[in-house]
Amino acid sequence: MKPGHLFVVLGATGDLTRRKLIPALYHLMQRKDIDQSVMLAVARTAIDDEAYRAMAREALIDAGFNEDEVARWCNECLHYQQMGIEEGAATLATRVEELEAEHALSGNRIFYLALPPGAFAGEIRDLGEAGLNESEGWTRLVVEKPFGKDLASATELNQTVHEWFPEESVYRIDHYLGKETVQNLLVFRFANTIFESSWNRDRIAQVEIIVAESLGVEGRGNYYESAGVLRDMVQNHLSQLLALTAMEAPSAFDPVAVRNEKVKVFQSISPITSDDVVLGQYQGGEAAGRALKAYRDEPNTDADSDTPTYAALRIAINNWRWQGVPILLRTGKGLARRTTEIAVTYKPEPVSFFKSMRQNPNAGPDVLRLTLQPEEGFSLTIDVKDPTERAAVKSIPLSFTYEEEFGAIADAYETLLADVINGDQTLFVRADEVEESWRLYETLLDADLELHPYPAGSWGPTAADRLLPPGSAWSTS
Amino acid sequence: MKPGHLFVVLGATGDLTRRKLIPALYHLMQRKDIDQSVMLAVARTAIDDEAYRAMAREALIDAGFNEDEVARWCNECLHYQQMGIEEGAATLATRVEELEAEHALSGNRIFYLALPPGAFAGEIRDLGEAGLNESEGWTRLVVEKPFGKDLASATELNQTVHEWFPEESVYRIDHYLGKETVQNLLVFRFANTIFESSWNRDRIAQVEIIVAESLGVEGRGNYYESAGVLRDMVQNHLSQLLALTAMEAPSAFDPVAVRNEKVKVFQSISPITSDDVVLGQYQGGEAAGRALKAYRDEPNTDADSDTPTYAALRIAINNWRWQGVPILLRTGKGLARRTTEIAVTYKPEPVSFFKSMRQNPNAGPDVLRLTLQPEEGFSLTIDVKDPTERAAVKSIPLSFTYEEEFGAIADAYETLLADVINGDQTLFVRADEVEESWRLYETLLDADLELHPYPAGSWGPTAADRLLPPGSAWSTS
Repeated sequence: MKPGHLFVVLGATGDLTRRKLIPALYHLMQRKDIDQSVMLAVARTAIDDEAYRAMAREALIDAGFNEDEVARWCNECLHYQQMGIEEGAATLATRVEELEAEHALSGNRIFYLALPPGAFAGEIRDLGEAGLNESEGWTRLVVEKPFGKDLASATELNQTVHEWFPEESVYRIDHYLGKETVQNLLVFRFANTIFESSWNRDRIAQVEIIVAESLGVEGRGNYYESAGVLRDMVQNHLSQLLALTAMEAPSAFDPVAVRNEKVKVFQSISPITSDDVVLGQYQGGEAAGRALKAYRDEPNTDADSDTPTYAALRIAINNWRWQGVPILLRTGKGLARRTTEIAVTYKPEPVSFFKSMRQNPNAGPDVLRLTLQPEEGFSLTIDVKDPTERAAVKSIPLSFTYEEEFGAIADAYETLLADVINGDQTLFVRADEVEESWRLYETLLDADLELHPYPAGSWGPTAADRLLPPGSAWSTS
Repeated sequence: MKPGHLFVVLGATGDLTRRKLIPALYHLMQRKDIDQSVMLAVARTAIDDEAYRAMAREALIDAGFNEDEVARWCNECLHYQQMGIEEGAATLATRVEELEAEHALSGNRIFYLALPPGAFAGEIRDLGEAGLNESEGWTRLVVEKPFGKDLASATELNQTVHEWFPEESVYRIDHYLGKETVQNLLVFRFANTIFESSWNRDRIAQVEIIVAESLGVEGRGNYYESAGVLRDMVQNHLSQLLALTAMEAPSAFDPVAVRNEKVKVFQSISPITSDDVVLGQYQGGEAAGRALKAYRDEPNTDADSDTPTYAALRIAINNWRWQGVPILLRTGKGLARRTTEIAVTYKPEPVSFFKSMRQNPNAGPDVLRLTLQPEEGFSLTIDVKDPTERAAVKSIPLSFTYEEEFGAIADAYETLLADVINGDQTLFVRADEVEESWRLYETLLDADLELHPYPAGSWGPTAADRLLPPGSAWSTS
């Protein structure tokens, strides 16, 4: 049991708080993974504790929790504080101290910025100026993504953060890091010699990281016009998956050592040129059984927008483990189906005794797939003799899903909140990491790259095929 | 479709012919894997074609085949020839030619010796002297196990065989080689770089080959007294599994190249000393839910018999791939349960980040199991993060069984008969191979080794534990 704390959410009337943070915190309390957690929801809306509790109760009951227990928790542990935009955090500081007194808390505080990115810097300054950057206990700052919109803005935001909060107190969220598959990636790689011993350029032909969405921009045209796919997905989620897939074994399984190795991956990546990138934008079509308008026809997008909704990138990691292995990142909206996976394709055997057997189209190279969405799972496809024929080879998958194997698993936010409460930064993005990942894509963000249209429901522009090694194919399509 | 042939079984009234050979041949015909096969059953019993067909029909109907089709096949394709012990094969030769004329066969012949081993040499001589060692078509000789009872007798039997039949016509049966798992072992090893690249002393901690029977000697005391476990199981089945597990990649997937590599394994094995062996004999007890008398109390065994029914051996293969890796063979009667498997235990990770997680007793080293009995299957146990706890590692098996994956699979005898008919010797034991495998155990066969009693239903004498590397355990027990 961890010591009690006050969990302050700034931006508490937003969707994230309702759908993710409140259920995660509540479930952690229920599971008794944490001791006492008092939540103070903060937002601009002029409502009182009771009104906020009613909203929270509804969210929790929707999430399937028991009505009576939910009501008790909301009454005992949930408070609301209105805070105007220009107001500063003095009122908040007073309320924080009152609640700590009321609940006999020892001053441990979490400030969770569930705010639009433009509000991060101002809010951090407000907290600092009101003296909320330190307390009798520990104080932790959680910052949602996106962290900056390019290298310069990320660096500036880091400077603001560090003016008030030491890096050891800062938790930059990338919720992909809270997924079981992602956490397991490190255990899987470094607890099983059979895989780690072949996790390199000698044995691996290509690595693919794909985050495919079948949805379009879904009414978020305003945000998306200013972001585009590189900022929305590549710099954060895909880069994080890449770092964990490619990193060397850390000297210890702790936040410093693990994140040092992730930064080294980014630093080993050769400059990404326009030759290594194919961008696209979806046209009208049908994706996963649902009609989609062209991106340019969505509300709040320019009729001649050149914002990319698809990117494929060929990354070269210039170190001893990966030199020469193409690392292919692909992500887009309006694609054929929703899937997020890391696919590692092994080299074929150097000499094939089974050439004639392999005429069987059911056989192929060994592929290891770590799937994050739609369900978290693991699959290793290997070739075995097909006993139904005299001499045939067939690829079969050795697989498991987390849900089948372990039952329902925790939501990524629950995992990450527990880590914040436990003071474990391993699965959060460090200041230098976020800057290095922006640096990778810096020259591409505002470059004048060709934009390839692709029909919604496809796997993106065929132009991306030129990124593949000769004779190779996408493992997912 | 292969050209027609005459399939002559010598010893055709025995159990093997009834339970295995007739159903296998019939099923191959049914599957149209072979063209025309006319069977001539030969034995001492004075019965006619009709009486033999009645027996065969019953055997096939017992095996689940359709009654009408069975009757038709028996009438059209099945014949019987009585042959006395001292008679020579002249009558047989005449009958063979008559049948070939009757069925318009081109002289392709298989002689299958389903006889007691003591009769092999005499029968081969008889066949040769009657001119049945060659024909207008091809002639193939199939010899059942055991092939010899030590190096000298095996060498002598090989000489007799080669007096009449060239090695290219000789098919020495070890029915373990017809199992899907065993055939798949080569495909699995040499079609999947991920496994072959770690199939060596750098990554593998130990290799175990276990053939455990829960049955006792089951009325075969006479035979067993003269054989013992080394002759009954170790020299043949376990040594064959060992050779396929340990061999280098052959230069081609053909009988010459594959068997060259198997012989090299035997030649690389360091002399096995009495330190490397633990023998045992089962006492009374209950094995797999069934009461067993002590071996010495079985019919036709000596009351003070020192025939071993259990052997554990530590083998050292002195080559670049395996030097230093203990290869542990274990086999016995009256053990806890029936299982045949090859278990490859990988080395633990050199540095463990998950030490605390590993206090979880559900985690262990990665083990690859290739199971032959009771059902043919494959299982790779790996460690993954247990998502139900904050920081725990759990071993889970990635597995398949051939039956689940491919439906009912062919009996080993069906596979092997098809190979004889197709003229493929890959899965049969070559003359030099059988001699080299006898040579391995030569000094142990009549040595005065301590005999450890063990209770029926156990995993054998605990004395065998001294063969394990320090800190290691049996993977199956």
